[in-house]
Amino acid sequence: MKVGILGGGSWATAIAKILTDNGAKINWWVRSVEQADHIKEHKHNPRYLRSVEFLDGELELYTDLDKFLECTEVIIVATPSAFIHSVLAAKSLSDKKIVSAVKGIIPEYNLIPAHYFSEYHKIPMNDIAIISGPCHAEEVAMEKLSYLTIASEDSALSKLVADKMDGRYIRCSVSEDLVGTEISAVLKNVYALACGIAHGLGYGDNYMAVLVSNAIQEIEQFIDHAYPLHRDVKQSAYLGDLLVTAYSLHSRNRRFGNLLGKGYSLNTVKQEMNMVAEGYYAAACINELAAQHNVELTIANTVYEILYKQVNPRSAFIDLSKKLY
Amino acid sequence: MKVGILGGGSWATAIAKILTDNGAKINWWVRSVEQADHIKEHKHNPRYLRSVEFLDGELELYTDLDKFLECTEVIIVATPSAFIHSVLAAKSLSDKKIVSAVKGIIPEYNLIPAHYFSEYHKIPMNDIAIISGPCHAEEVAMEKLSYLTIASEDSALSKLVADKMDGRYIRCSVSEDLVGTEISAVLKNVYALACGIAHGLGYGDNYMAVLVSNAIQEIEQFIDHAYPLHRDVKQSAYLGDLLVTAYSLHSRNRRFGNLLGKGYSLNTVKQEMNMVAEGYYAAACINELAAQHNVELTIANTVYEILYKQVNPRSAFIDLSKKLY
Repeated sequence: MKVGILGGGSWATAIAKILTDNGAKINWWVRSVEQADHIKEHKHNPRYLRSVEFLDGELELYTDLDKFLECTEVIIVATPSAFIHSVLAAKSLSDKKIVSAVKGIIPEYNLIPAHYFSEYHKIPMNDIAIISGPCHAEEVAMEKLSYLTIASEDSALSKLVADKMDGRYIRCSVSEDLVGTEISAVLKNVYALACGIAHGLGYGDNYMAVLVSNAIQEIEQFIDHAYPLHRDVKQSAYLGDLLVTAYSLHSRNRRFGNLLGKGYSLNTVKQEMNMVAEGYYAAACINELAAQHNVELTIANTVYEILYKQVNPRSAFIDLSKKLY
Repeated sequence: MKVGILGGGSWATAIAKILTDNGAKINWWVRSVEQADHIKEHKHNPRYLRSVEFLDGELELYTDLDKFLECTEVIIVATPSAFIHSVLAAKSLSDKKIVSAVKGIIPEYNLIPAHYFSEYHKIPMNDIAIISGPCHAEEVAMEKLSYLTIASEDSALSKLVADKMDGRYIRCSVSEDLVGTEISAVLKNVYALACGIAHGLGYGDNYMAVLVSNAIQEIEQFIDHAYPLHRDVKQSAYLGDLLVTAYSLHSRNRRFGNLLGKGYSLNTVKQEMNMVAEGYYAAACINELAAQHNVELTIANTVYEILYKQVNPRSAFIDLSKKLY
């Protein structure tokens, strides 16, 4: 089955490296003609993970999405979640298998990618898989040993993807917990924002350890209630993914939160970073999901109130701190 | 009941600050007459947490252990675990309540402090409590909000200690899981060593998140099997304590491991650091305990083999990495 990657960012580039290092020939759609031409000619992505070198014949570059879709059976979606709907809304994805490597929610529908593809594009859940961390793309570029979890309700699909990605510096596990893993991956961005805010407010490492311990319990509480399944959130796909984001100084969510904690206004932070962190949209999505499922998420709700209800970070965290343990 | 602190290090100093900031008058035994005189005269510990200032009348300093024991009913033991037996072996502790703030094992007996005090000193388990992190003493000195867990099989004792320590920058929880919490606190030093070795060998953040996720599962596997009790290792006293140590660049265990991972010999590392990290003794203790209970601890055993069986760290971690997920 022909595999293609949709998106030109660092995670897309890392996945292209993983697959081609294993000998696969892949299709790759990027939006910009200039970027595609550069990759074709110079065999590296000019904008992300520049050190990653590809070889002749490994990549078929596309900027025409229809042609890409025509020639691709398994689509690894690796664009920022905020762009997915604008890119794919008008396209037919019937008979495709979708592997979401997206870390976030589709803001137009407040849906996690699996639910977006099944509800909006009518793709059967058995034809949807996700690639989950803990994994910074930068470390893939450096070939640092990393562990991925491939989750799908269809174990044949998750094994297929795992086989293609397993390699010298990548170890894949498979899981049937598609939705729980994806929700957890979305939630962790909200908690990384919380860690950033706490750090910006001057809380220390002792506090951070407590905040993260409470966060993983909150993740479990929510996904076990909303999507009951026998799972252990101490596994790498849940806890590991939270840790690599919450403890990373390079995490955009953490940096975003840090500036808020230091007292900058939301607008200033957006301008300063020239972007909106995934956790910003995720906080709204999760707030709505938590209300639907009637679960109270103490930390996530604190972040939501800071981002959307103009609650002062310092007083919000004084309240939050009384509820941690 | 008169409370006294045994030990003159940074954690002892932090506890003295916590108690006196809450208005307690405490006894404090330190080994060195010079140190005791300095604290009496200058109201701060000359060697640890120098910024912490005490007030007149808060502290009664002792260097005579017999006199200290005569005047003290609740003894907070905060010396390094390697010195406890040499300090206390010949003393009678009958009728005392022991609150262990020790983070390690008693090497002469390969026992955790709770078991050492109950087996060697015949103190009833109901008269033993422990103070558990996540808590770097340095952050207590800076009055950064920190959460402690006080564990005892006697909830009246844990509440008594919690009441004395709860304050402006300290939040205490209580727990009945004395032994599980203490074993977890010992094990985390072994895992911090493992994280240090991994870092020294060049593994990255992606790997570290997986190593820590596997470590907390290994902690649960061991204590649930050896000391069955309903507990949630995602709570701060277990996971939080692991995180604050494993992710701290200041942890001595992590630094110790880091040098081993970089290829220095065990002897060189001991000389270089002019000390032996708690995790070094803990690895031997845990190896023995795991054998007694017939539990296999993959990560802890890898550390044990590197420290005591001259196994090469690089090849040991290549083997270990195949077992992580």
